[in-house]
Amino acid sequence: MTTEKEFQETTAQPRTAAPAERHGYVHGYSATEAQRLGDQADTLAELLHADTAYPAGSRVLEAGCGVGAQTLHLLAGSPGVRLTAADISADSLAEARARVAAHAPGAEVTWHHGDLHELPFADGAFDHVFLCFVLEHLADPVAALAALRRVLRPGGTVTVIEGDHGSAFFHPESAAARATVDHLVRLQAGAGGDGLIGRRLHPLLTAAGFDDVAVRPRTVYADGSRPALMEGFTRRTFVAMVESVRDDAVAAGLTSPAAFDRGVVDLRRTAEAGGTFHYTFFKALAVNP
Amino acid sequence: MTTEKEFQETTAQPRTAAPAERHGYVHGYSATEAQRLGDQADTLAELLHADTAYPAGSRVLEAGCGVGAQTLHLLAGSPGVRLTAADISADSLAEARARVAAHAPGAEVTWHHGDLHELPFADGAFDHVFLCFVLEHLADPVAALAALRRVLRPGGTVTVIEGDHGSAFFHPESAAARATVDHLVRLQAGAGGDGLIGRRLHPLLTAAGFDDVAVRPRTVYADGSRPALMEGFTRRTFVAMVESVRDDAVAAGLTSPAAFDRGVVDLRRTAEAGGTFHYTFFKALAVNP
Repeated sequence: MTTEKEFQETTAQPRTAAPAERHGYVHGYSATEAQRLGDQADTLAELLHADTAYPAGSRVLEAGCGVGAQTLHLLAGSPGVRLTAADISADSLAEARARVAAHAPGAEVTWHHGDLHELPFADGAFDHVFLCFVLEHLADPVAALAALRRVLRPGGTVTVIEGDHGSAFFHPESAAARATVDHLVRLQAGAGGDGLIGRRLHPLLTAAGFDDVAVRPRTVYADGSRPALMEGFTRRTFVAMVESVRDDAVAAGLTSPAAFDRGVVDLRRTAEAGGTFHYTFFKALAVNP
Repeated sequence: MTTEKEFQETTAQPRTAAPAERHGYVHGYSATEAQRLGDQADTLAELLHADTAYPAGSRVLEAGCGVGAQTLHLLAGSPGVRLTAADISADSLAEARARVAAHAPGAEVTWHHGDLHELPFADGAFDHVFLCFVLEHLADPVAALAALRRVLRPGGTVTVIEGDHGSAFFHPESAAARATVDHLVRLQAGAGGDGLIGRRLHPLLTAAGFDDVAVRPRTVYADGSRPALMEGFTRRTFVAMVESVRDDAVAAGLTSPAAFDRGVVDLRRTAEAGGTFHYTFFKALAVNP
């Protein structure tokens, strides 16, 4: 047994800025969404990023930086790295660039607009690769990981962070609430992604040829003793994420507006007095042989 | 944030010796079951018990000691306590007594045969009360906790450990496997218990009048990097527990033998190469005001 942080004290959220590589980004690209992603990344930082620190001078690739929400935390935890941040969305990349310029003006960042499956970098160009809430949106995560492994030097590491919506359980229990979460998972699957990818990180990284694959759950648990977490995670993060697919779920014929809204009401109830909420993220570290 | 053990290295299981207070004990009382419970408690010890240590001389009540599987760990972690171990099953109690005599011959234990709702002890007779995998079998856990609070001195603590079968998720995903787990939950509910009780510990303890209720998830996660955990937890503990209700599930008309067995095959697959398995226990500490 090793000791490590107890993560449950930290506000956290299940997914943040992630590009739609070859597929639709299920959460959309609105300004509201970008704000939501930024807020959530801040509250998740301690839970997800505290133990990621690359040595100064390391050549680091953030694949799928989105609007830069995780980029700031990466730079804060690893001052002096030589970061390349890549994303398939030019708009997101511009926003990430502005965000870093505002909050980390001294950081050395190279911005790359492109598909992470077809990066123009030389074999072994990076010491470390970092992905957060990216694989969940890709149709072939093993192919993506293999493409990233190519640009990683032998002995270099990849860090992958993902959620898993199947890890969400709560009190009071509610079939309507479960159904709304399932709609999100189905919509994401329909867009070629996988909202249940957290549990697959070990086999995916292994299949992509990585060694020493170590995956650890990072659990968020909120109850009446943690009102800030109930508000910050359960309501403003998880429920907000579920609510964001309401129109799409209705349009896809998965549900009616009334049924969806009942599920959201029940989900919100888990953040009221007497309610509890559980969610598990997974963080993986692996080595390029 | 506080630091604490990383629990995932530890083999663990979702439920162990628990008496059927006023209701049927869903797992039965066979010798095989007692052996299973003993083995499982050993592997779970570090995960669930490592941070429970009562001062020597403390008056401790273990409510629902069953066959003594947790009793040994309690005594090992708290040498010198004055333990009272209570259970509603005389046979289980005799087995617990023999187990403690064999493995902790110097321990000072008073054995009490009776219902934990109607303990004959004076108000405030104990400094600490300990329950592990007991509340899940009770029809009215708040009443049980209130009865236990009566025999706890002001300022004394209660420690509660429970699983939550709704926390089980795995790869490969399988509807048949989910159904078999659901059968267990339904059978337990039919017997007056709640296999999803872990998520309710905070509201239950609060409703029973306890203060400073602190509940923390304790997660078991097994993947290909942890073959011992796949074998010890996923197969020999969780799947074995699910398998133990096969005949009852069929007799209750919840499933057919073939359908149940398909689910078990799929559950076992999650402990083979490429599989993963996640389960969350909850441990609560609260104070009698």
